[in-house]
Amino acid sequence: MLMRQLVFIAEVDKIKLVLRRTLLTDGSRPENDAEHSWHLALMAVLLESYASGPVDMTRVLTMVIIHDLIEIYAGDTFAFDVEGNKDKVIREKNAADRLFRLLDGEQGIELRSLWEEFDRMDTDDSRFAASLDRLQPFIHNVLTDGHTWKLGVVTKSQVCARMEPVRTGMPAVWPWVEAHIERGVKNGWIKEDVYH
Amino acid sequence: MLMRQLVFIAEVDKIKLVLRRTLLTDGSRPENDAEHSWHLALMAVLLESYASGPVDMTRVLTMVIIHDLIEIYAGDTFAFDVEGNKDKVIREKNAADRLFRLLDGEQGIELRSLWEEFDRMDTDDSRFAASLDRLQPFIHNVLTDGHTWKLGVVTKSQVCARMEPVRTGMPAVWPWVEAHIERGVKNGWIKEDVYH
Repeated sequence: MLMRQLVFIAEVDKIKLVLRRTLLTDGSRPENDAEHSWHLALMAVLLESYASGPVDMTRVLTMVIIHDLIEIYAGDTFAFDVEGNKDKVIREKNAADRLFRLLDGEQGIELRSLWEEFDRMDTDDSRFAASLDRLQPFIHNVLTDGHTWKLGVVTKSQVCARMEPVRTGMPAVWPWVEAHIERGVKNGWIKEDVYH
Repeated sequence: MLMRQLVFIAEVDKIKLVLRRTLLTDGSRPENDAEHSWHLALMAVLLESYASGPVDMTRVLTMVIIHDLIEIYAGDTFAFDVEGNKDKVIREKNAADRLFRLLDGEQGIELRSLWEEFDRMDTDDSRFAASLDRLQPFIHNVLTDGHTWKLGVVTKSQVCARMEPVRTGMPAVWPWVEAHIERGVKNGWIKEDVYH
């Protein structure tokens, strides 16, 4: 059992090489999934009181720590890439099959189940975890002149849809998010929607 | 309160730029403190059952997530740098004064107290957290031909002293560590001690 866990610990080191579109807040380079996941865990600790319902912090922390492990095999899918998101579900399912099998039965099953719960966003724990996963790159965008919004040529309705989990999962934080969406539009980082 | 937390969340992004001596397991580059802290959190989840006593996982996870934040201001001190370790305590205390003050009273005090507990290693939670902090770079050394051992021209007794928290904090993992210390000596990555 220990040997399989050590192999898993070595294997997931690869997450440090999975680059995201988000830049570090100083704009110096893209951040990777390990850094992103660490940041979510820290935010979970700091922002627990904003969760919309009571949360089990051990479950939340475990979710955010493991939520991007499947990207070691499935790659990072840019949030605003419509094409890339079409086969995201099947790519990530295959990655999960390959990844969690590395662990012994019970532990692998438990972690996979937490990852699936995170993805479904149908519990207080997973809603809080998912809202952190939206809020962190949002903060980075605010601090890097809307880097990934400009990259994706994104409209206000797309950003609002992407940030919806924050509106429901951390309602007290939503006014801050909303104000910064407006600021992004005003600065031209986020496009106004055009209705025909 | 939210604004100070958001400022803190933005400030600690700098931890992603604090480089360690440890290499990623593929040897491609040094890892940084955010990646290292993420790895400890994942290891805590996987290896909980090896802790020498019952642990509170939320406290352990919070400890490993925040344990290196003070290095944003104090810098990383190489474990085998005797000179650098002389003023480490005072440098890190000053860094903690500066860092945790960014948060509102209660939350700052609570996190600082957890960081101090981690450093003291005098509870089951902190002993487990500290043993993970020793085990992770050890695994990286095993996988990168003893990189930091060679860098520090380190002797077997130095490595054993460094790994002591694993012997007491995760006794069931110690035989694996011991075998790999012997392997490191055999490969010339770790020096034999010379007694005069």
